[in-house]
Amino acid sequence: MPELRKDPIIGRWVIVSVEHSRKPKDFIENLSFVEEGECPFCAGKEYLTPKEILSLSDSRQKYQKSTNWQVRVIPSQAPLLRIEGDLDRRGKGVFDVLNGIGAHEVIVESPQHISNMADLGEENIALVITAYVERLRDLEKDKRFKYVLIFKNYGFSAGGGRIMHTRSQLIATPVTPIRVKEELFGSKRYFEFRERCVFCDLIMQEIATKQRVVLETDSFITITPFASRFPFEVWILPRNHNCDFMNLRETEKLDLAKILKRTLLRLKLGLNDPAYNMIVHTAPFRREKEGYWKTIDQDYHWHIEIMPRLIQVAGFEWGTGFYICPIAPEDAAQYLKEVQV
Amino acid sequence: MPELRKDPIIGRWVIVSVEHSRKPKDFIENLSFVEEGECPFCAGKEYLTPKEILSLSDSRQKYQKSTNWQVRVIPSQAPLLRIEGDLDRRGKGVFDVLNGIGAHEVIVESPQHISNMADLGEENIALVITAYVERLRDLEKDKRFKYVLIFKNYGFSAGGGRIMHTRSQLIATPVTPIRVKEELFGSKRYFEFRERCVFCDLIMQEIATKQRVVLETDSFITITPFASRFPFEVWILPRNHNCDFMNLRETEKLDLAKILKRTLLRLKLGLNDPAYNMIVHTAPFRREKEGYWKTIDQDYHWHIEIMPRLIQVAGFEWGTGFYICPIAPEDAAQYLKEVQV
Repeated sequence: MPELRKDPIIGRWVIVSVEHSRKPKDFIENLSFVEEGECPFCAGKEYLTPKEILSLSDSRQKYQKSTNWQVRVIPSQAPLLRIEGDLDRRGKGVFDVLNGIGAHEVIVESPQHISNMADLGEENIALVITAYVERLRDLEKDKRFKYVLIFKNYGFSAGGGRIMHTRSQLIATPVTPIRVKEELFGSKRYFEFRERCVFCDLIMQEIATKQRVVLETDSFITITPFASRFPFEVWILPRNHNCDFMNLRETEKLDLAKILKRTLLRLKLGLNDPAYNMIVHTAPFRREKEGYWKTIDQDYHWHIEIMPRLIQVAGFEWGTGFYICPIAPEDAAQYLKEVQV
Repeated sequence: MPELRKDPIIGRWVIVSVEHSRKPKDFIENLSFVEEGECPFCAGKEYLTPKEILSLSDSRQKYQKSTNWQVRVIPSQAPLLRIEGDLDRRGKGVFDVLNGIGAHEVIVESPQHISNMADLGEENIALVITAYVERLRDLEKDKRFKYVLIFKNYGFSAGGGRIMHTRSQLIATPVTPIRVKEELFGSKRYFEFRERCVFCDLIMQEIATKQRVVLETDSFITITPFASRFPFEVWILPRNHNCDFMNLRETEKLDLAKILKRTLLRLKLGLNDPAYNMIVHTAPFRREKEGYWKTIDQDYHWHIEIMPRLIQVAGFEWGTGFYICPIAPEDAAQYLKEVQV
């Protein structure tokens, strides 16, 4: 069982692999990439992975388990958190420990050995989005989970590992993570002060000034954020106020797939196929309509953040929490807008 | 002038290079390393850098400007923050902006083209420590600065850039950075509850259990922290309670140099010379003895954190603030202890 350990000073939680601890030499040796013929995520190699949790073959048949799949969700074979057991919170002198309970799943986005989501068809990406929504709805039923993070690590320097096959991951956590809380608290503060959603205000301002707008579709907008942490960081925001990715309308799925593909394609073609992380920022589960999260439907606004890994995060950022962005977001937006797709 | 831009949602500050914005192609092309003959930090190449702020040639002559230097402090040629001007806080619609005021200095640690601090002599490292203390004392006089972060980026993947010559950096900021505040608040909370310093308690427990102790000297201890964020993360802590690195006693400098060298050497030899970030965690300037920081002398404890860059920080960490450590800190401590030095 992995341990969730709490730093006694700042209260930061860390997932520590205590049983299946990697060996020191694993960090030293250069890892080689897995060849296409050995890829466990390709069609025909399903026997190399655990049984699927969900498989989708067509956007009109949403929950059809089959071997003829287009998108396939499986449990992670190297889970950061385990689905079985209890949290069993306990102390060790000044330290706090929890068992690493949670869910860790892999969303295989194509039966073919394609590496970048940018190269999938729009219908295919819409099916990936359907898989995200389906898994969120299912995991909400497990009362132990407070949050599900959906993310993608593309490329080795973004933590994409040794297998190139395009996939996303999701992790369900028994606590609402600190970074999620910071965003929720921030939007709540703004709402209490102005009685408006900070994201809605931001979208209005971005559309008016146009300086940081990269792409627009009927329902979505891609911008480089004003306080970008990373060069060419981009956010995709729904125009209509909605706090929860699960509430995505059926008609919005293909539009989201369209803007996501176009955004990723501009990063790929304009920046020499960089590694990137993509993170879905959505509201935590709101099983009770009481307490702190009561107004979350009004004050939070789901969105996707994409962070190309073009520079290294260094000592100053780790030490201060200040990020340094060496290109103005306005210049980055202009550049991405002009990429020939 | 660089801009300090505030994210309107979570209030995170980012330094954005708006005038000397890097060009998109700078992120695409592979950078080559600067050859030894062209290194601006080597003795005899002083004309390639700005005039020194401080140069030290001997631990007994602390503030002697000279060309015969062992450690040399210069202004950064690519400063993240500028020393001249005012903050000029202002709004842009929903956004907040400050001018990027601050100091950014480079501490060149040797006149020779040595790349890793681990390979410097102990006397030499003690002189680097003297330079840190001298610069903190000098910058404290500038009332605009609230904090000085001293850090080191070693190796390209730790943000060490294109020049290999061993050096540290310091950045003085007009605000106390968020990560520093989190640590200060955390230690204050613990002190209010137990009337003891959390770091002192932690040191006692670590010495008693021995599981995570890598090295001990008369005045210092090197441990792998219980909730390590990174594999082989190590902290160096002074045994005697002291909140401020500036208060380091003369007799402790050589002892700190000794444990720092031995710690870095174990990382180098045991882990194939990994890239790492080193950060000095010290108290902010306490010009007034009132208000929130009144008790900081009691509740905070300076220390050094060293983070080898052996794995990539990926989407889950960015999205949640949870770190994942794939090796148990107890195993990492055992391994480092056994490295043949």
